[in-house]
Amino acid sequence: MNAMHADVRRFHAPAAWLPEGWARDVLFELDGAGSLVRVTPGAQPDGAERLDGPVIPGMPNVHSHAFQRAMTGLTEKGGPQGDSFWSWRQLMYRFLEGLTPDDVEIIATQLYCEMLCAGYTAVAEFHYLHHDPNGMPYANRAEIGERLIAAAERAGIALTLLPVFYAHGHFGGAPPNPGQRRFINDREGYARIVERLAQRLKDRPTLRLGAAPHSLRAVTPEELRATVECVESIDREAPIHIHAAEQQQEVDDCLVWSGKRPVAWLLDHAPLGSRWTVVHATHMDADETVRLARSGAVAGICATTEGDLGDGFFNAAPFLRAGGRLGIGGDSHVGVDPFLELRLFEYGQRLKLERRNVLAFAVRESLGARLYRTACAGGAQALGQKIGRLEAGYRADWIVLNTDDPALAEHEGDGLLDAAIFGPARAPVRDVMVAGRWCVRGGRHPLAQESLARYRTVMRRLLG
Amino acid sequence: MNAMHADVRRFHAPAAWLPEGWARDVLFELDGAGSLVRVTPGAQPDGAERLDGPVIPGMPNVHSHAFQRAMTGLTEKGGPQGDSFWSWRQLMYRFLEGLTPDDVEIIATQLYCEMLCAGYTAVAEFHYLHHDPNGMPYANRAEIGERLIAAAERAGIALTLLPVFYAHGHFGGAPPNPGQRRFINDREGYARIVERLAQRLKDRPTLRLGAAPHSLRAVTPEELRATVECVESIDREAPIHIHAAEQQQEVDDCLVWSGKRPVAWLLDHAPLGSRWTVVHATHMDADETVRLARSGAVAGICATTEGDLGDGFFNAAPFLRAGGRLGIGGDSHVGVDPFLELRLFEYGQRLKLERRNVLAFAVRESLGARLYRTACAGGAQALGQKIGRLEAGYRADWIVLNTDDPALAEHEGDGLLDAAIFGPARAPVRDVMVAGRWCVRGGRHPLAQESLARYRTVMRRLLG
Repeated sequence: MNAMHADVRRFHAPAAWLPEGWARDVLFELDGAGSLVRVTPGAQPDGAERLDGPVIPGMPNVHSHAFQRAMTGLTEKGGPQGDSFWSWRQLMYRFLEGLTPDDVEIIATQLYCEMLCAGYTAVAEFHYLHHDPNGMPYANRAEIGERLIAAAERAGIALTLLPVFYAHGHFGGAPPNPGQRRFINDREGYARIVERLAQRLKDRPTLRLGAAPHSLRAVTPEELRATVECVESIDREAPIHIHAAEQQQEVDDCLVWSGKRPVAWLLDHAPLGSRWTVVHATHMDADETVRLARSGAVAGICATTEGDLGDGFFNAAPFLRAGGRLGIGGDSHVGVDPFLELRLFEYGQRLKLERRNVLAFAVRESLGARLYRTACAGGAQALGQKIGRLEAGYRADWIVLNTDDPALAEHEGDGLLDAAIFGPARAPVRDVMVAGRWCVRGGRHPLAQESLARYRTVMRRLLG
Repeated sequence: MNAMHADVRRFHAPAAWLPEGWARDVLFELDGAGSLVRVTPGAQPDGAERLDGPVIPGMPNVHSHAFQRAMTGLTEKGGPQGDSFWSWRQLMYRFLEGLTPDDVEIIATQLYCEMLCAGYTAVAEFHYLHHDPNGMPYANRAEIGERLIAAAERAGIALTLLPVFYAHGHFGGAPPNPGQRRFINDREGYARIVERLAQRLKDRPTLRLGAAPHSLRAVTPEELRATVECVESIDREAPIHIHAAEQQQEVDDCLVWSGKRPVAWLLDHAPLGSRWTVVHATHMDADETVRLARSGAVAGICATTEGDLGDGFFNAAPFLRAGGRLGIGGDSHVGVDPFLELRLFEYGQRLKLERRNVLAFAVRESLGARLYRTACAGGAQALGQKIGRLEAGYRADWIVLNTDDPALAEHEGDGLLDAAIFGPARAPVRDVMVAGRWCVRGGRHPLAQESLARYRTVMRRLLG
């Protein structure tokens, strides 16, 4: 078709990381929607736009609470009774009392620009901040969800938006506590949010709707089913994300409630499979680890936040050995850097086991390549988007690595990933493309200055 | 004295972190040697050079093997038998077979420029690469040590050079293995290196000589004493550094050899005190922890390298509660970032204990401030230099923070340190001064491009 052919754009990379491995002189051909129609190694540039470095797929970020970006650095005040995930959560509840929809949009825009500069090209937003500071729905019930969409579109990042169903304060349907009033919906209110967001996200190539029953603390078994059915009535393949087993306390409470550990309960009662992402899954016994791996669900590892919150160590080696899938998430955004996430994930395993290269089982690829590839594939699955591979039929979401970063200098192939993840790189990303659109050039996002100026006004008020 | 007064340079900061806490409008007056002669809060700029952000002391890096910078990202290939500190060490021995003195100088210059950009203003170089690839002394026995001095002077970083005495391959005086041939000296050869370096370092305000008996694996008790005596014959106050208890295997071997754990052995047999730094001290029992703290020696924590090598977790909370002193070290330089070192140090504690803010006992300061202050003071002690405090009598080694980094935006006081350490900062350092000389302006070192070009030629050969 001539019309389509006229739309094809062509890019030529000196090297690119294709599903079959590293290749030189790769020609990428994109259609008008920003998807790859052909990828040809060993090709001449022949008038294509030259890419200024080795190309790898962009990384999906499987777990984000965007507003928490503005809290980073504000919670390092230890009380005399000590500090934990639970006292951190109280601070978070207090922090969001003053947040307006404008604030959320400004913070999210800033965050998404930072994510793109760092190499994330897509994000799953686990979105539970639905109501106004008094806990009343906004006139538009999907107000804040729409602000997140606006932020993603403005920054240029792909988005899977997961409106969260949150109804209770504890296992067994206990009433919510006052700090949770902005999160709480009944089933009808939730359905209206989902419907509205579905309209808004329809037929947008970089946006997708999913759903998130918050956790077994926040939803009853019946509500868990209803949440899934609600989104399935719109999209039978919609991604489903749920928090589970982040803290030992949660495991203990779940045992009291159900006689089972959280991941085991989900494996027994929910249809876990390739559409599901279990976020954290930190505290699993050996049986849960293997069963979760075999379920085909993605484990959403948020290593930096899990370090910050003192959650514990994911059972990584047995999970991957059993074929488990995983993605990485920025969660509270104390780190906005996919390379740092992967490094801390592996470091946690090394420190726990007192060995090196714990997650390197494959002989054909280096540890950095294995981690990056695994997180790209798992992230793409978790977001339900056609990303994570530089291959015809996938979207052109990619990173051009910055080989002028001294940590990457003269490295090649898998070594580039090892150096970017495990070396002292400060700026491993040069250019970033999402769906055929340049979002970052030379390490900079065109919106950076304007976004930072608006972010400052929000921070001045929040910190004042 | 008029002559001295003519030399005084004046700088004015909008805010600065002084020993008594944060102050506004601080005037710094420096003598011709780059030391602070007066620090005045609440002062008018009055013609002084304006500093473009809040000022904090530069961070000393207490443990560096500069040449290992070039190995970063090269050791992430897991073997079928798994990988450990010990297999990593074999790779390191192979890597340095090809290194020339020129290579070492080029790598060290690159590293020291990177350190300055990241906020390190001084480094203790634990220098054991003495001989040529055949294990023969260079015509100038101190050849490589002098190259490290040249690199430090070129980059502008302050240096405490610790020539290492290394004689054996294992506890109890076992012969060295062939991979160690470039390290090995007899006592006379070592003394000649120390004498020569002492001449070279004499009366240089940013350079200091110390000594490092490598470890209880590499020196006998008699050689440990002799190493200390050798440097004391030149400087009775010289800093002494030693590796200890990095790996559990080392503890087990030390128990077999002596019936004691390594740190306990040192506490019993070496004059540990404020001139000493015990590098790593990862594996200590409760008694060793308290005794090391009370000895006044510095623990040299290298959190990033210890994560990379799967060493384990330092006993931080009981050590600090007992008054222990600590500094941070880049060691193998898989990370070149003092803020990341402090973050990973605290994250390790959180993950081990499943709590937050483990090292925040003080009510008057935040965790970030506590960690930074502790590491500055311990680092200054470890290096034996008059640094780490913005106070009259101390050297003007400082960092101007980059408040245009979005992670620092609108934070103030201790919050700046919390944000720089525990937030998603990418470039928290704007300008860096050492001994009154600007080394970094606007995040850039003037030597960066030239140094990287030379570093590339070395890396091409090493990777080729």
